[in-house]
Amino acid sequence: MSNPEQDLFNLGMSEKAQPLFYAVQKHVEENVLPITEEFFALNEGKTNIWEWHPRQLELLEGAKKKAKDAGLWNFFLPDAETGEGLSNLDYTYIAAQLGRSPLASESLNCSAPDTGNMEVLERVGTPEQKEKWLKPLLAGEIRSAFAMTEPNMASSDAKNISTSAVLEGDEWVINGEKFYISGAGDPRCKIMITMVKTSPDAPPARQQSQILVPIDTPGVEILDGMQVFGDYDAPHGHMHIKFNNVRVPKENMLLGEGRGFEISQVRLGPGRIHHCMRSLGQAEKALELMVKRAGSREAFGKPIIRLGKNVEVISRARIEIDAMRLMVLQAAKAMDVLGNKEARVYVSAIKAMVPEKVCTIIDQAIQMHGATGISQWTPLAHMYTGQRTLRLADGPDEVHHMVVGRAEAQKHGAW
Amino acid sequence: MSNPEQDLFNLGMSEKAQPLFYAVQKHVEENVLPITEEFFALNEGKTNIWEWHPRQLELLEGAKKKAKDAGLWNFFLPDAETGEGLSNLDYTYIAAQLGRSPLASESLNCSAPDTGNMEVLERVGTPEQKEKWLKPLLAGEIRSAFAMTEPNMASSDAKNISTSAVLEGDEWVINGEKFYISGAGDPRCKIMITMVKTSPDAPPARQQSQILVPIDTPGVEILDGMQVFGDYDAPHGHMHIKFNNVRVPKENMLLGEGRGFEISQVRLGPGRIHHCMRSLGQAEKALELMVKRAGSREAFGKPIIRLGKNVEVISRARIEIDAMRLMVLQAAKAMDVLGNKEARVYVSAIKAMVPEKVCTIIDQAIQMHGATGISQWTPLAHMYTGQRTLRLADGPDEVHHMVVGRAEAQKHGAW
Amino acid sequence: MSNPEQDLFNLGMSEKAQPLFYAVQKHVEENVLPITEEFFALNEGKTNIWEWHPRQLELLEGAKKKAKDAGLWNFFLPDAETGEGLSNLDYTYIAAQLGRSPLASESLNCSAPDTGNMEVLERVGTPEQKEKWLKPLLAGEIRSAFAMTEPNMASSDAKNISTSAVLEGDEWVINGEKFYISGAGDPRCKIMITMVKTSPDAPPARQQSQILVPIDTPGVEILDGMQVFGDYDAPHGHMHIKFNNVRVPKENMLLGEGRGFEISQVRLGPGRIHHCMRSLGQAEKALELMVKRAGSREAFGKPIIRLGKNVEVISRARIEIDAMRLMVLQAAKAMDVLGNKEARVYVSAIKAMVPEKVCTIIDQAIQMHGATGISQWTPLAHMYTGQRTLRLADGPDEVHHMVVGRAEAQKHGAW
Amino acid sequence: MSNPEQDLFNLGMSEKAQPLFYAVQKHVEENVLPITEEFFALNEGKTNIWEWHPRQLELLEGAKKKAKDAGLWNFFLPDAETGEGLSNLDYTYIAAQLGRSPLASESLNCSAPDTGNMEVLERVGTPEQKEKWLKPLLAGEIRSAFAMTEPNMASSDAKNISTSAVLEGDEWVINGEKFYISGAGDPRCKIMITMVKTSPDAPPARQQSQILVPIDTPGVEILDGMQVFGDYDAPHGHMHIKFNNVRVPKENMLLGEGRGFEISQVRLGPGRIHHCMRSLGQAEKALELMVKRAGSREAFGKPIIRLGKNVEVISRARIEIDAMRLMVLQAAKAMDVLGNKEARVYVSAIKAMVPEKVCTIIDQAIQMHGATGISQWTPLAHMYTGQRTLRLADGPDEVHHMVVGRAEAQKHGAW
Repeated sequence: MSNPEQDLFNLGMSEKAQPLFYAVQKHVEENVLPITEEFFALNEGKTNIWEWHPRQLELLEGAKKKAKDAGLWNFFLPDAETGEGLSNLDYTYIAAQLGRSPLASESLNCSAPDTGNMEVLERVGTPEQKEKWLKPLLAGEIRSAFAMTEPNMASSDAKNISTSAVLEGDEWVINGEKFYISGAGDPRCKIMITMVKTSPDAPPARQQSQILVPIDTPGVEILDGMQVFGDYDAPHGHMHIKFNNVRVPKENMLLGEGRGFEISQVRLGPGRIHHCMRSLGQAEKALELMVKRAGSREAFGKPIIRLGKNVEVISRARIEIDAMRLMVLQAAKAMDVLGNKEARVYVSAIKAMVPEKVCTIIDQAIQMHGATGISQWTPLAHMYTGQRTLRLADGPDEVHHMVVGRAEAQKHGAW
Repeated sequence: MSNPEQDLFNLGMSEKAQPLFYAVQKHVEENVLPITEEFFALNEGKTNIWEWHPRQLELLEGAKKKAKDAGLWNFFLPDAETGEGLSNLDYTYIAAQLGRSPLASESLNCSAPDTGNMEVLERVGTPEQKEKWLKPLLAGEIRSAFAMTEPNMASSDAKNISTSAVLEGDEWVINGEKFYISGAGDPRCKIMITMVKTSPDAPPARQQSQILVPIDTPGVEILDGMQVFGDYDAPHGHMHIKFNNVRVPKENMLLGEGRGFEISQVRLGPGRIHHCMRSLGQAEKALELMVKRAGSREAFGKPIIRLGKNVEVISRARIEIDAMRLMVLQAAKAMDVLGNKEARVYVSAIKAMVPEKVCTIIDQAIQMHGATGISQWTPLAHMYTGQRTLRLADGPDEVHHMVVGRAEAQKHGAW
Repeated sequence: MSNPEQDLFNLGMSEKAQPLFYAVQKHVEENVLPITEEFFALNEGKTNIWEWHPRQLELLEGAKKKAKDAGLWNFFLPDAETGEGLSNLDYTYIAAQLGRSPLASESLNCSAPDTGNMEVLERVGTPEQKEKWLKPLLAGEIRSAFAMTEPNMASSDAKNISTSAVLEGDEWVINGEKFYISGAGDPRCKIMITMVKTSPDAPPARQQSQILVPIDTPGVEILDGMQVFGDYDAPHGHMHIKFNNVRVPKENMLLGEGRGFEISQVRLGPGRIHHCMRSLGQAEKALELMVKRAGSREAFGKPIIRLGKNVEVISRARIEIDAMRLMVLQAAKAMDVLGNKEARVYVSAIKAMVPEKVCTIIDQAIQMHGATGISQWTPLAHMYTGQRTLRLADGPDEVHHMVVGRAEAQKHGAW
Repeated sequence: MSNPEQDLFNLGMSEKAQPLFYAVQKHVEENVLPITEEFFALNEGKTNIWEWHPRQLELLEGAKKKAKDAGLWNFFLPDAETGEGLSNLDYTYIAAQLGRSPLASESLNCSAPDTGNMEVLERVGTPEQKEKWLKPLLAGEIRSAFAMTEPNMASSDAKNISTSAVLEGDEWVINGEKFYISGAGDPRCKIMITMVKTSPDAPPARQQSQILVPIDTPGVEILDGMQVFGDYDAPHGHMHIKFNNVRVPKENMLLGEGRGFEISQVRLGPGRIHHCMRSLGQAEKALELMVKRAGSREAFGKPIIRLGKNVEVISRARIEIDAMRLMVLQAAKAMDVLGNKEARVYVSAIKAMVPEKVCTIIDQAIQMHGATGISQWTPLAHMYTGQRTLRLADGPDEVHHMVVGRAEAQKHGAW
């Protein structure tokens, strides 16, 4: 067992990161949790669901200001000049705190897909691109989207992407259709990093590029919001977008033609780890609700936790959550120790493992609540649909199992 | 193996029922399927979601008229004067046809909870009760609800029901709270059969009664609609209702004080069988969608049905659906051969078996669709939440497994 | 729903078959169950495990004589001159009785692989082949084996079979290796129907043939018995056999060169149905043992059936067993109504469904017994290994799921 | 997140332990793996299965001598004078190496149940007890057993233990029955630590005691070996033992009357961790075999790893193994950081988690091997039965889930 391998098992937070961790925890508890309920209640009764209620903006901007004043801002960039130089492992502990309210990440300017977009711009952007887009993103003045998924391709195979970009003179002309573009419904969203096929004759891994498309470019047509089990998730929304001869300057290309997948390597790992950590926050919440319900609700003369399989369901949930947490921390550590590329299999492992098991745990919490579990009186139904969606987003489970299974086979020359 | 036991294995439809079966099939195909899409599209954009769009009523009444004209009306009552004298088994085949559109049952005046309510009135109602409520229900002029579930009790244990009815003079005075009262949001709903505790000092099985409560009685306060994974299922709705000193005449009691559970025996079996049969219709639909998607969508250069576990998922779905269908038919046959009481274990078996497995099948269809599976572009997300709800309605899975497990134990003196 | 489809749902035993069914039941109870324990106790302490103890032969021949005298002999052939002309459905009910003791089938001359071999000889044998091998098999004087599986091929793909037969003059010369040839260890076994590749240049489905190989032919080398979870299943045994230039006369070919798969169609369906029916007998036994144990063993002050998930485990076992029984009966009926070829998908469905679920049920019975469950004090461990083996025999689960899944896909043009 | 909590996440081996770890690894590879096959082949054909073949003793003693010479001896005692003062975490890494051959532990005098017995004697033994039994155990001259499980009690509830010890003068008189007493069949086994009920009138947790019973005491009657799925595991064996008025001196009592459960706390944690670590060794072996088979065996024209769900099965096995390893390491760390008592829930979590999941992985490896998987040609069948047994030994899964579930409930006052 070599030293780097052993290092993969040391998963505690660094001393250095602890002050930041506690500061974020305090911020979430003092500035975010108290405004969360009011914020979402304001969604009800809006005539245009994509519009923000002025009070919503006020609440969110207030929390952002408090974070900025406390110096809790833009610390997400791992090992970067602009960030705190946090390791992936340390950031993962912090991400768990951010999972406690849907507003927490944004209040610290750490919310998806902006974090990934900012990281990409920071790493591969030109000075002009940084000035124009990274700066206002880092300032929390605008938001952004990442336009990848297409309705007419299997999302499991990114090489299928068919939205085309053709160079005409000094402009790329983009045509195609994307859907589930999260955040593009938010009126504050100004820029989309868009995955396009620029080089259909190159080898498959070099056909795609990433390009900056301002959302107000003529030809960008937002058709509708896509629902998630009937919900539009307004005002951010998951938009269905058509690109009709959308023209952007040549300079909007990121890194270079045919380098789309190369850029993806930068963003994919951390984003998936943060998703998984937030999923675990959901699982902990579901477990807590399940235990409290099972301990307080009675049937046949006793608390239902004393009936049937309920206590075993609780035990299995606890065991699986603890095992998943260790796996997520190890994947983060692997990114620190082995680098994004080598850590790819660790990341696929947790992406395939976590949302599926978390869905099961939330589903069991629903079952233990009876009809209340599917109602508006608990967050469980909404939590379920959110996690269920993650089994499809960023590659369906099946693709990540393929990555892990193939890597295992390759160890023995079996692939 | 005695003859009645053998008879439990003859599960084909009777010759006698076949003309009716084919007539219903024709009606569904010609009069119901063509109006279904328009009907539900009219839900969008209503300001009061509980209100019916005039065109919705027009479509539905049109289909009802066609059914009545064809003599396809009120045939649901098993072995009753008013009905066609269909066996439970034969009706089950017909119920499968009714599962093909959410409007089909109502177009034939065979939709829940009216069927159960009409059956109860037909069996135990007084002539006055029949005249006042059964007649307009049989005519399809009004609709009804069944008010049983309470927010503050475990729905798994009906003996917990706490809404009280106290006799004061010639009136019962009702106080309590109910929720998920399906159909009570529909403006056409006029009467609720309500489960109340009248006899707190009697043995547990004799404490509850069922009583007729007109929905416009003073003190009936409809607080809100309960959501199902975020959806109100308007205009029928699942209402949250408070009973504040609601006074109904003594004569509204059904069958007699303390006989509430006795009445439940009448309604529970058939209702659960119909639910299960419709669930199988949903499973068949999900399987069909999954196969078509898997055969047409490509990834990594082939149709996804050729990838990974997909063909095995399809096989397992087919096998489980076929096995469930046989079990549902046998439960119906058991009601015919053994009577509702003896068939209770058969009915609990399918109630515990079917919705859980159907949820799994729909979930797999979602997975095979990718993001489209959770969107408004397929019916799968809505189908899933509907079936998930059934695992809690009419007794959660756990209660039905208790019935089956205990009966098995009793065969060997182990309970 | 057409009439033949409806007929697939009438699964009761015919009136005609009932006397035979009851006679077999009586025979098993009076003549077989009483000798079973003594028979197997005699296996202990034999120096040559492949040898029969004289008392074992005496017991078995005694039971055979009683069956013959009662006219219960060779009734297995469906719709054949020699048999009782039982439908597959009726025979399936009888097979359930035969599952009650490992000696029952043989006592009635109905045990595998002889039944399949006799059926093949009866259908496709020449008069000389019938005289020489079918006659003594029908008389119960000799036994036979079916040599198909090979150690060096994936048993999931019969087209892989590599044992070669080459015509030299008037003789076929056979070379190759087979394993898990059940019954070939029994000293009474005289003849093997052997699957060989005769036509390597024909299309894949026409390369294999079936040929009669007397077990004492020079060059037939029995290397060893194959173990099943450490057990040799002596004296029948599952033998590992080498064919070293084994020469048999040209006339030993069955039906004709290249027609091996065609012959397989004859034997496969019924054999799999009987296996599944016996598996259900094992599942019923496991469920009974589990219930009795759970009702009588105490922990923490109560019978363990009152603890944790146990009663739900029992319920799920009952539900799955009942569903499987209906599926097996329907597969038998499908063979009667649709013919062996069309019923193929029904048979694959139960072959994929039954052993897997029965393994789970036996495993749960083991768990409920604690250490006793894996000991020699209950039959559960042996039952488990037997059923586990069935998930690999006659095609692994995966192949049968492929058959069912592909058939489903073909309904929608998706394969 | 407090510091001790963070410490629970640092799971790497200590620098200090690494030389010992590598020395053990070298010993296993050079001195143990090369003799393993010969050792077990010598079991075949012994007339008395409980006897050791002289060559077996020679092989084992040779390996023991080499270990002793290299100073690799008795290092198992955590933080003890006699041992190396290894932490539980460090020992766990070493235990993984010991899982590579069934002979490895004994070659280093680290095999169960001797390790637990020695630890108990070291901690609570009197100087006389240590002189008489601990000394020869530490020298590897004798072996020992732990007699706890009884055939007539549910092993899930240790308070049920009914073997009685009654003080008559200066002797305890023991009567009762035990089974599955591992190692008691080995002729070298001289002493049994025996759990007995001495104080039936005390509170339940104080009724049991542990007492030293030399195996040659008159009245100790070894009835038979208990089988594990048909295997006696000779020569160690799992014995069925009757105690008929067995008399041992008063001084043989350990620690004191009624303190049996207190002593159990000492031994239970480490033993379960080592079991789990060895189980993971088995799982890794099964995964390796499965991958190699799947990569090399062909069907339908390709390696079976390219067919159906196989690659996903491999992925899921890898993910679960990695997650289990982290959990086992964390349980060991919890013993180091929190102490045996507080770590109890962590240990129950892995005891409930690991053997069940490892059974599944081995079972899938069997399935991927076809008939070879259940044969003597792979170790898989034997590995399966061994792991299956662990789901019952040291408390069945259900009891450990109860411990974990109850602890979770107590966090929220729900138990």
